[in-house]
Amino acid sequence: MSCNVPKSDKKRVVIVGGGFGGLKLAQKLKRSNFQVVLVDKNNYHQFPPLIYQVASSGIEPSSIAFPFRRLFQRRKDFYFRMAEVTGIYADEKIIQTSIGKLSYDYLVLAAGTTTNFFGNKEIQEASIPMKTLSESMGLRNALLDNFERALTCSNPQERQELLNIVIVGGGATGVEIAGALSEMKNFVLPKDYPDLPNSLMNIYLIESQPRLLAAMSEKSSANVLKYLRSMGVNVLLNQRVTDYKDHIVYINDGSTIATRTFIWVTGVSAQSIANMPSDKIARGNRILVNEFNQVEGMDGVYSIGDQCIMPEGDAAWNGGHPQLAQVAIQQGNLLAANLKRLEKGKPMKPFRYKNLGTMATVGRNKAVAELAGMKMGGFMAWLMWLVVHLRSILGVKNKLIVFFNWMINYFSYGQSLRLILYAKKAKEVTDREERLAKLHGVHKA
Amino acid sequence: MSCNVPKSDKKRVVIVGGGFGGLKLAQKLKRSNFQVVLVDKNNYHQFPPLIYQVASSGIEPSSIAFPFRRLFQRRKDFYFRMAEVTGIYADEKIIQTSIGKLSYDYLVLAAGTTTNFFGNKEIQEASIPMKTLSESMGLRNALLDNFERALTCSNPQERQELLNIVIVGGGATGVEIAGALSEMKNFVLPKDYPDLPNSLMNIYLIESQPRLLAAMSEKSSANVLKYLRSMGVNVLLNQRVTDYKDHIVYINDGSTIATRTFIWVTGVSAQSIANMPSDKIARGNRILVNEFNQVEGMDGVYSIGDQCIMPEGDAAWNGGHPQLAQVAIQQGNLLAANLKRLEKGKPMKPFRYKNLGTMATVGRNKAVAELAGMKMGGFMAWLMWLVVHLRSILGVKNKLIVFFNWMINYFSYGQSLRLILYAKKAKEVTDREERLAKLHGVHKA
Repeated sequence: MSCNVPKSDKKRVVIVGGGFGGLKLAQKLKRSNFQVVLVDKNNYHQFPPLIYQVASSGIEPSSIAFPFRRLFQRRKDFYFRMAEVTGIYADEKIIQTSIGKLSYDYLVLAAGTTTNFFGNKEIQEASIPMKTLSESMGLRNALLDNFERALTCSNPQERQELLNIVIVGGGATGVEIAGALSEMKNFVLPKDYPDLPNSLMNIYLIESQPRLLAAMSEKSSANVLKYLRSMGVNVLLNQRVTDYKDHIVYINDGSTIATRTFIWVTGVSAQSIANMPSDKIARGNRILVNEFNQVEGMDGVYSIGDQCIMPEGDAAWNGGHPQLAQVAIQQGNLLAANLKRLEKGKPMKPFRYKNLGTMATVGRNKAVAELAGMKMGGFMAWLMWLVVHLRSILGVKNKLIVFFNWMINYFSYGQSLRLILYAKKAKEVTDREERLAKLHGVHKA
Repeated sequence: MSCNVPKSDKKRVVIVGGGFGGLKLAQKLKRSNFQVVLVDKNNYHQFPPLIYQVASSGIEPSSIAFPFRRLFQRRKDFYFRMAEVTGIYADEKIIQTSIGKLSYDYLVLAAGTTTNFFGNKEIQEASIPMKTLSESMGLRNALLDNFERALTCSNPQERQELLNIVIVGGGATGVEIAGALSEMKNFVLPKDYPDLPNSLMNIYLIESQPRLLAAMSEKSSANVLKYLRSMGVNVLLNQRVTDYKDHIVYINDGSTIATRTFIWVTGVSAQSIANMPSDKIARGNRILVNEFNQVEGMDGVYSIGDQCIMPEGDAAWNGGHPQLAQVAIQQGNLLAANLKRLEKGKPMKPFRYKNLGTMATVGRNKAVAELAGMKMGGFMAWLMWLVVHLRSILGVKNKLIVFFNWMINYFSYGQSLRLILYAKKAKEVTDREERLAKLHGVHKA
């Protein structure tokens, strides 16, 4: 195995991670004088804002995932490599990947974040995260399997555990999945499971801070709390989950909740590279960059998006920018321009985040949005949420399919996507993964 | 765990398997005087004729899979139970399932078939079958993963193994997947993998009989052979695969082909129930039934579709009916009527198969069809194939989506479904599967 990227007269930009930041950078380098290599462990770009709808069977994964090879068809001097990055040798300008070494002139680390279990191995093993498409499909399967088993469970205690859903984390993801599951409870389950008492199904949303959506205004937090409670979600504020053992969630005030669907969406940690010097790492495992997204002291190394933190320069965000799509996209955009400037001997421009606003949706006609100083709630915010997210999905066909699905759900919740379906992994793939893991010390999940 | 089906004044019909036959029977018993329990190991009905298009990334699994609960919403005295059947106690009129025992007045075994590996454990472990949706998603993932790895493989021998595809079995499934993969090779790969020499990719289709589609006429066989060869598929006739070891396919004439994509679609074996008396089992592991689909000597037990064989009665099919959707559908239809007759004290009617024709498609504008004594090929057969299959897919929305996908593929092969995606299985689900396996001796794959 090798990365097998042909040599070129042009300088090589290696982008690690094809999320919002990495993808934007790769697209903006289109007519540049660089050879571009995009490395990602998946063969597709995914659209995180709608992953919760995949989990709740609202849309299909293919509607919010876009194969890189298709996105970059016919692009000159561009190479996609499906691999994981495991090491960096900045002096030699080489990275180690799961399929071999790769040299670079410029390296851009844009691998984003992963779920943070805060060191609790038991929670890590038994909880269901929802950060990736693969995880959201796993959650969908587990939810539906638990409903099927609740129906045929003769032990009342176990049945209650199967019907209780506990979501930990009251950020946008937690709020959105709580809303989607509550709509499932209220509109889908009574039809699909008429012999399952709906009243037995309880949804808990646990947040350690005094309010939901702490990154938004108090008004939006209050709105979201009101929406969720009106939909029957049990929102617990100022409560911290301390453990999860034998289907019991332990909370720091001494109370417990029994559940077999324990969804962990609280906090993220930046993806790490094993041999990254520790003085380059700051809070949340994020890579320290200067206001040009440069990793200082490592020649030609940059980091953008959720994986980096920029402690200085942008006065309004001294604690680091929020880990949002917009920051990554704007940094990807600017870095593309800066790399071109650098090649022409021009000075780079520092990053200044332009806050385009934030929003979260809870259910039909229920959302909150904060844009350009305006705070909105209810139907208008919900409509705006739909438009903004539909606009951001890549491809006309995908926009149409998602819109079509949303309309069906809006009028009838009548989607028929509730399949429990696992892909059978071929032995050849399993064998290869083991072989590569031995060779390069990584295992592709 | 128990099956937890409420007692009813009505007699209970338990249907095992929601394929074409079982589904038709359940639907036809709608306004009957029976309580109906449908048991299936999946929570959805799948549409096997298009499974190969899922494998070749042409359509999504949700377009050809229909959750039973959605299909039977609002149906009175109907119960769906997701479970596997492991034993039958005909004297007590009880079946053993993976979630507990279930009593019946009438039992209808309609569980279809599974892939036949003819006792070769190595082939069973290392080959990729394509009988279920889950397997076809596994094949899709393996195909795409193999292409990614071929691109970065520095060993020419291994690279060739990754690019060779061997399909064993020249029935409809083998012919259709060979055609679909050859279209992928010719139209998709050059765009997605411009740096992978297309000429290196070889597709082999191996059939032990002297012609493809042995169930159809010689003319259709000749047409299909011509189509496949014109599309670049290497068709080997009169050749039998004897083994597959270390990525080498061994053929009975002494030749070998190296491949890491070894697709096994030759022959099926009826699903078996462990304690079924052996005198009830005939060729292909099929359950012997009389012309009323009754299992003689087992009171109230019936079998329909691919899982059964009816050696007598239907003169034209003395060796047993072909294992086709139409036979299952017609038997399901008749059995619904016969069970109602039985309850009214009327005599049952014997089964007579009405052959509505057979067809197979190879690629755009290329198909064969034999209907009402007519033999067609080319564009007309292909158009008829499209219409017949589109009509058979359940639900207006699914018809629209599949039609939409087919149109996109017809004009551009531009689908963007080529995701390598596995669902992460939650620990709760894995644990439960192990527990149920210990309790009832089954493991849900």
